[in-house]
Amino acid sequence: MPEFLKLKSVNEARAVFYQALGEVHPGAEWIPSLSALGRVTAESVVAQEYLPAFSRSAMDGYAVQAADTFGASESLPLRLKIVGELPMGAEPALVLHPGEAALIHTGGMLAQGVDAVVALENCRALSSLVLEVFTPVTSGENVIFKGEDVKPGKVVIPAGKRIRSAEVGGLFSLGVTQVSVVQKPLFGILSSGDEVVPPTAIPSIGQVRDINSESLAAVVEAAGGRYQFYPIVPDNREQLRQSIRLAYQQSDAVLITAGSSVSSRDITAELIHELGQPGVLVHGINIRPGKPTILAVCNGKPVIGMPGNPMSALVIAELFLKPLVAWMLGEINPAPRPMLQARLTVNLPSQVGKEEWLPVRLVPRGAEWLAEPIFFKSNLIFQLADAAGLLHIEPDATGKMAGEMVDVLIF
Amino acid sequence: MPEFLKLKSVNEARAVFYQALGEVHPGAEWIPSLSALGRVTAESVVAQEYLPAFSRSAMDGYAVQAADTFGASESLPLRLKIVGELPMGAEPALVLHPGEAALIHTGGMLAQGVDAVVALENCRALSSLVLEVFTPVTSGENVIFKGEDVKPGKVVIPAGKRIRSAEVGGLFSLGVTQVSVVQKPLFGILSSGDEVVPPTAIPSIGQVRDINSESLAAVVEAAGGRYQFYPIVPDNREQLRQSIRLAYQQSDAVLITAGSSVSSRDITAELIHELGQPGVLVHGINIRPGKPTILAVCNGKPVIGMPGNPMSALVIAELFLKPLVAWMLGEINPAPRPMLQARLTVNLPSQVGKEEWLPVRLVPRGAEWLAEPIFFKSNLIFQLADAAGLLHIEPDATGKMAGEMVDVLIF
Repeated sequence: MPEFLKLKSVNEARAVFYQALGEVHPGAEWIPSLSALGRVTAESVVAQEYLPAFSRSAMDGYAVQAADTFGASESLPLRLKIVGELPMGAEPALVLHPGEAALIHTGGMLAQGVDAVVALENCRALSSLVLEVFTPVTSGENVIFKGEDVKPGKVVIPAGKRIRSAEVGGLFSLGVTQVSVVQKPLFGILSSGDEVVPPTAIPSIGQVRDINSESLAAVVEAAGGRYQFYPIVPDNREQLRQSIRLAYQQSDAVLITAGSSVSSRDITAELIHELGQPGVLVHGINIRPGKPTILAVCNGKPVIGMPGNPMSALVIAELFLKPLVAWMLGEINPAPRPMLQARLTVNLPSQVGKEEWLPVRLVPRGAEWLAEPIFFKSNLIFQLADAAGLLHIEPDATGKMAGEMVDVLIF
Repeated sequence: MPEFLKLKSVNEARAVFYQALGEVHPGAEWIPSLSALGRVTAESVVAQEYLPAFSRSAMDGYAVQAADTFGASESLPLRLKIVGELPMGAEPALVLHPGEAALIHTGGMLAQGVDAVVALENCRALSSLVLEVFTPVTSGENVIFKGEDVKPGKVVIPAGKRIRSAEVGGLFSLGVTQVSVVQKPLFGILSSGDEVVPPTAIPSIGQVRDINSESLAAVVEAAGGRYQFYPIVPDNREQLRQSIRLAYQQSDAVLITAGSSVSSRDITAELIHELGQPGVLVHGINIRPGKPTILAVCNGKPVIGMPGNPMSALVIAELFLKPLVAWMLGEINPAPRPMLQARLTVNLPSQVGKEEWLPVRLVPRGAEWLAEPIFFKSNLIFQLADAAGLLHIEPDATGKMAGEMVDVLIF
């Protein structure tokens, strides 16, 4: 067991963990584009068509030849001959010649000869045959040309992109109704402890229900992974070894909530270390809460020993587990996660060198938010339900002052 | 048709819309707690048990009577008699008397007589029978008393709360494996336009695929609702009337993407207005993009005429549709949606009085983000795929300067 491992900072822990993990090569599956929201593309989506497929108007107005409008003004309007109306949803039969104009609607296909559209508010039909134009248009004005958005062969969505509603729309605009996405990584989740019983059980006196497995499963699923639970193991080295090994063999990643005593955490670290190379990389992070966290990579598979305290587990889930799921999905350039700016209501001293995350209530006041720290006691899960987010105290800060604006991570 | 309706500001539009909509009374359903992430509670969850169910240690250490440790120091340690080890997961058989200490692990049940725990690092066992204590503890220190988190009858999760992973854990800690949540509101989604074909169709020349229905469906689903599509309707008043009426009757809310010409938007507004009281409240919002938006409430059901331009639809979905889904779910105190602070790369003039949302790329630079505006042309959906978020320009701003920090809504 690597006894030499010291507390690492959050950044050091991340660096050593991802360096050991390296690039992932997840499998792919084809799914309907309408189910693809939140999934990550496994390969680039390449356009097979022009978009738009034909040159069309971006406005309600009159289709013209731009050159015919040069010099037009309110005081000296130019006159064009109205030769008809261009249909919606069909190819126009007419061809526009110099000196002519045709009524067109937004989205209507341009007739041959048309290179611009005069918006309705910049012209007036004097009769069904005569149009007065008050403002000149340049070639291409108020029109979208064929292929201006996309031409065949263009990569419209790169591999490794998390699909948002904009991408769902984009896929359908090209008629792409199936998309190849990365398979959801499977997280094996297990808890140990002589006092721990499944959440569906009635605990005897001295026993507690396992809660971290369920809340970690929720985090994994929301981040884009899937999970499988393993039975709760008593504080017995051999049973724990077998269970960890089974989860490791059957899953893409393993989350273990070990018994909460120091010795069971040490045993857990030893058993994780046995699984494969390089083994345990981080045994303790310089963060509060969340210190007793184990990060390991065993033959390419990530294994995390989660802290048992629910608040600690939540912080580690936000800072390490969610990004790990994104990493395993091969997500490129994950969307930045903005922090809420809020005004702190009390003075908060902090220990230099330790990164802190403090649960806060958020109270609206005028246009801003007040952040009221919740001074929590270890293991009280329902104080979490009061918290809207986690106030961040950087490791180099000696604390935060009442009235100061602080960063709050919303969860 | 209410011709008198003028462009409303975003805030005015919101106010008039929600005032007309009023409080919702959604139905409820029981679901497994493990599937409840992101759902909204339909009724309060009331604890039936104590949590913790027994007084327990929060540390690895020695269970003591606090009074026995008063005056202990490094230089003058106090000695206690070690009388055994308290078991994990079971009720201790021993009773602790004055002058005695018992080994205890984190989460272990306190024996009778114990009122504090001395942490391991603050004491030392001289033998299996003698403990030296270096630091005094006060009564209650390092222990969690029965019911300290929750007592029977306490509302642990109020009605109208969006369930996060913390609440999932909380439910299981009490053995609550089923929870009553609000039914997902059903959004009827329909598009109209002579030129519009379903996204699965091969468009003929002059036709385009419907894309907004699919991207709006994705937004509705992600926000916690469900949806049903209605067939695309040509620009025919009677067919559109029947289709809108059907969607209105079968759904809890209706989203219509009308043909993009001014006249079809006007017809849509008239048909919505016929559905019920008070009818169309907002016909045009002073925002760019997203101006041609219709907000209506018809006999208590919300109906939105969405802009046809995909970028406009996305902005209106962020600002109006997502909050509407939360409102219909009866969500109380939705989590604040933080904006990313980013540094603008170019000068951006803006028209005073109009709220603007401009798509931007985000580029990391050192510890901050650069916001590079994407100058988009109407209807180009794949420029959206480049955008990481929307830069906000408040209605009273004349613009933003290069180098200024700006707010970006991440989508």
